[in-house]
Amino acid sequence: MLLEAVYHHPKRNWAFGYDEETVYLRLRAKKNDLTAVHALTGDKYDWEQTREVIPMYKLASDDRFDYYECRVKPRFRRLRYGFMLEDGDERVWMNENDFVTEEPQNPERMFQYPFLNPIDILKSPAWVKDAVFYQIFPERFANGDPSNDPEGTEPWGGEPRRDNFFGGDLQGVIDHLDYLNELGISAIYFTPVFLATTNHKYDTEDYMKVDPHFGDLETLKGLVNECHRRGIRVLFDAVFNHSGRTFAPFVDVLEKGEKSAYKDWFHVRQFPLRVVDGVPTYDTFSFEPMMPKLNTEHPEVKKYLLGAAEYWTREIGIDGWRLDVSDEVDHAFWREFRKTVKAANPEAYILGEMWNESSEWLQGDQFDATMNYPFTYAVHDFFIKQELDAEGFAFRIGKQIARYPKQAAEVAFNLLDSHDTPRILTLAGGDKQKMRLAVTFQFTYIGTPCIYYGDEIGLDGGPDPGCRKCMQWNEAKQDRELLHFYQELIELRRSHPALRAEGAITFLSAEADGSAIAYERRGADEVLIVLLNRDTKPQSLSCPVRESGWQLLFGQCSWTTLGGVLNARLPGYGYAVLRVPLS
Amino acid sequence: MLLEAVYHHPKRNWAFGYDEETVYLRLRAKKNDLTAVHALTGDKYDWEQTREVIPMYKLASDDRFDYYECRVKPRFRRLRYGFMLEDGDERVWMNENDFVTEEPQNPERMFQYPFLNPIDILKSPAWVKDAVFYQIFPERFANGDPSNDPEGTEPWGGEPRRDNFFGGDLQGVIDHLDYLNELGISAIYFTPVFLATTNHKYDTEDYMKVDPHFGDLETLKGLVNECHRRGIRVLFDAVFNHSGRTFAPFVDVLEKGEKSAYKDWFHVRQFPLRVVDGVPTYDTFSFEPMMPKLNTEHPEVKKYLLGAAEYWTREIGIDGWRLDVSDEVDHAFWREFRKTVKAANPEAYILGEMWNESSEWLQGDQFDATMNYPFTYAVHDFFIKQELDAEGFAFRIGKQIARYPKQAAEVAFNLLDSHDTPRILTLAGGDKQKMRLAVTFQFTYIGTPCIYYGDEIGLDGGPDPGCRKCMQWNEAKQDRELLHFYQELIELRRSHPALRAEGAITFLSAEADGSAIAYERRGADEVLIVLLNRDTKPQSLSCPVRESGWQLLFGQCSWTTLGGVLNARLPGYGYAVLRVPLS
Repeated sequence: MLLEAVYHHPKRNWAFGYDEETVYLRLRAKKNDLTAVHALTGDKYDWEQTREVIPMYKLASDDRFDYYECRVKPRFRRLRYGFMLEDGDERVWMNENDFVTEEPQNPERMFQYPFLNPIDILKSPAWVKDAVFYQIFPERFANGDPSNDPEGTEPWGGEPRRDNFFGGDLQGVIDHLDYLNELGISAIYFTPVFLATTNHKYDTEDYMKVDPHFGDLETLKGLVNECHRRGIRVLFDAVFNHSGRTFAPFVDVLEKGEKSAYKDWFHVRQFPLRVVDGVPTYDTFSFEPMMPKLNTEHPEVKKYLLGAAEYWTREIGIDGWRLDVSDEVDHAFWREFRKTVKAANPEAYILGEMWNESSEWLQGDQFDATMNYPFTYAVHDFFIKQELDAEGFAFRIGKQIARYPKQAAEVAFNLLDSHDTPRILTLAGGDKQKMRLAVTFQFTYIGTPCIYYGDEIGLDGGPDPGCRKCMQWNEAKQDRELLHFYQELIELRRSHPALRAEGAITFLSAEADGSAIAYERRGADEVLIVLLNRDTKPQSLSCPVRESGWQLLFGQCSWTTLGGVLNARLPGYGYAVLRVPLS
Repeated sequence: MLLEAVYHHPKRNWAFGYDEETVYLRLRAKKNDLTAVHALTGDKYDWEQTREVIPMYKLASDDRFDYYECRVKPRFRRLRYGFMLEDGDERVWMNENDFVTEEPQNPERMFQYPFLNPIDILKSPAWVKDAVFYQIFPERFANGDPSNDPEGTEPWGGEPRRDNFFGGDLQGVIDHLDYLNELGISAIYFTPVFLATTNHKYDTEDYMKVDPHFGDLETLKGLVNECHRRGIRVLFDAVFNHSGRTFAPFVDVLEKGEKSAYKDWFHVRQFPLRVVDGVPTYDTFSFEPMMPKLNTEHPEVKKYLLGAAEYWTREIGIDGWRLDVSDEVDHAFWREFRKTVKAANPEAYILGEMWNESSEWLQGDQFDATMNYPFTYAVHDFFIKQELDAEGFAFRIGKQIARYPKQAAEVAFNLLDSHDTPRILTLAGGDKQKMRLAVTFQFTYIGTPCIYYGDEIGLDGGPDPGCRKCMQWNEAKQDRELLHFYQELIELRRSHPALRAEGAITFLSAEADGSAIAYERRGADEVLIVLLNRDTKPQSLSCPVRESGWQLLFGQCSWTTLGGVLNARLPGYGYAVLRVPLS
């Protein structure tokens, strides 16, 4: 056994409360190094009477490691535990500080999950587990009210630039809710809608005002109400890392310098505020002078921003927030934000914009989930760029599954693209077959899928500003076949809980140098197998299966089963979902 | 390189803010596997201009791993980073998700410490770094006022039992503050002083009342004021995990059952409250029916307990809290506790009772430090029980150093025993030579040492109740030599900042099967070497040293230096501290 590879750490993704009576334990070991792992568990005050040995299953694998998991229901909500590692006849026990070769009789030096306090458990809103999101960039979705167009608005469908306007607004969204209902999505994430100078509105001027180019408060209320009536939840964008240059407190500091009553609302390194060699004398988002970083530790700033968050959540009744540049804002602020928002709406979804490892924010006190860019990259690298083989893809996904508590994975925001990346179709060089594979994976994987507006009808575009094109409403110019494909996938996901949080995921086939994968989603009542071939040529796959009597649910595939092995053949760029009911 | 052994994780003890401009990075590797480690650092928005390669030094080692560390001062408080690992000519770079064999040119997939927000940094009170604590169990320290003795008080110095009383009180402490000043301690941790039925007072009846057997509010105020006048800080014991059976809200639930307005103040599994087969129908500390667990998520309970914490901190002016059974109380409660207490006294020391790994509580939002029982165990195992060799001891200590952020190690509460363990002298089988070695280590190690009352004059005693004997005030029966030894060590520590937080610690000699150790404490103005021999026989030690001109500061030892090596000889059970000034 390679003990240097064995890892466990109390709490975090290694020992976490899942609900008021359940703790999950995880252990990492070198890949294929162990034949079995068990958890030794019990109550620290009555070890003898409560001692239980629980087998651990392989949750996931990555390029170097296997991740084992088990579920424990500690009778008195207190848990001591250690691990028994086996490689054939060799046995080693893992304590908090060391490995020993005899079973420990005394729980004192074992690990502990001291007490399962409900308030510390990450509880993600249940609706998100079943949701399909749609991201709308309002300036480019639909122009429903030309009367509020900004000066110089260009004709709909022109070339997007960093600074031009096309007149998209809230009424435009209201006008197309039938379309979204038909598509089948159940939640919308809106990029910012508050008063700001740019077309993207990430430079907030007033967090309490609807941008007049988008509409007014009544329009916004109408939009939210109409969405709710149609069973569509609404997420707003909280741009709390920085304000815009025209935000009144910042204007005051620009004008009055050190004498401004608002000077501590920002992080000023040197007065007067200016830009020297491209670097502002105050902290900003990136080095962007028009986006001064807010001092979210300042009581008045907190009061203002949390007041805004509470207002829109409570009064307008939105269903959650996406948090812009969330990693650069202090943890203390987000803890208060969570309290404020959940008090206003206990079912609100709090979603951080994160591009990196996000454990620190997913422990129950801050976010429910993060934008799952590591998922995005893995999908790009395998299906689109084809820089990764099947095994490498399964390992990247495996690492991601093991990285966070189960409940965070269940509502991870799985996107293929956004207003901050090139569109998936463009990344795929216009190859819709590749794109379909990526989308099929997205909709059959654990977490919450999000469609970036227009992807579903074949909108393309490179990096910002290219990815922010106007939505195509001329049906003759929409890819209706692709749209239908999305509708089918959404319906597939809707009608099969095993594709959502309920289903355990296991890779059945993902070979080195392979270009096809198969994975199982095992639910309470049925098992689904998803098969995907990213090669232009047909591919054969062999998967170990426990069940027989598979039926094709989606896509195209031929197969036989024999002796617990399913041999499948997929066409070039083929995808298929097989199903068997569990009796 | 054994890449399976390489570990880094964003935040926690692996990447932590130390002050408003400094981040520490750490990396773990298999022991002796690497010849060099560097951190690649820069600003994510301007990698090219800010890129810096920083060599990492070996912070500590344990039985399997080396821990490397470096300090970074990111110019704009944002940090992207990766690591370059070297084994001779072989080079590997570590990103967030993988290892690569070419230097990464793009910081996107590296690790990040997104922004150094001051409020998220663990800031421990500066005074604790320099403090020497003394733990007092008031019922057994001194009886200064026989008029408040409980009924049935036994003569001072009798056999301690779980339920007997000897009349110790607050006036007794006041009477002996001269003694404590002469000893040289600078802070007292008092086990509970609030109204309760037992001699240990861990079964609180009223968190707002001084126990009348200990004195009244005026006595307590007088004690705190007199301590402060003498430069002695005061820590109280917050027993917030559970109350006592006589706590009025619990009495109400006992009486009224489900109809009690306080029924949600506790965790009742089944009404009526009773004990079935030794298990109460409500959650308790351990299975102790007289200590019902408080529901610290309940708003009224929080208000009451936080109100008490604030009152004693603000009105009585205490300097911090030791938190009983802190691991079983919810994290959310401790976050509010920290805010409340630090608002009342920003320099308050918040110290959790923890027996296990405590990372989760030492991230800046909960505790400043924990009772360092892992330290205690290591010291017992090496110096006292002699179950561990020198190398094993250095490894256990090394693991502990690497485990928490630097600032937590600087104020770790390093104890050899307490009211919850046998006394160190008893563990040592009465061997004061062994005890002196343990104490010398305690006072020359990083962190905050605490003396359990009476240890310094040779008090002994086994597990509770044995360890709770009456203090011996008859000087003829005190071990005055031992007391003098403690005084010397305290003075040594006081006069040499390198022995405290300032000094880096490096083991210079700790051999497999060895019974002697040497370690360096490197300060700003001087370097100290501590040498300890736990064997009955004299031992020779060789240490690599950078300086020459060593002088004996404490203890007994002969030595020569030649060619960068110090060869020392210690008598049986010998201890010594050598010093050289840095010019």
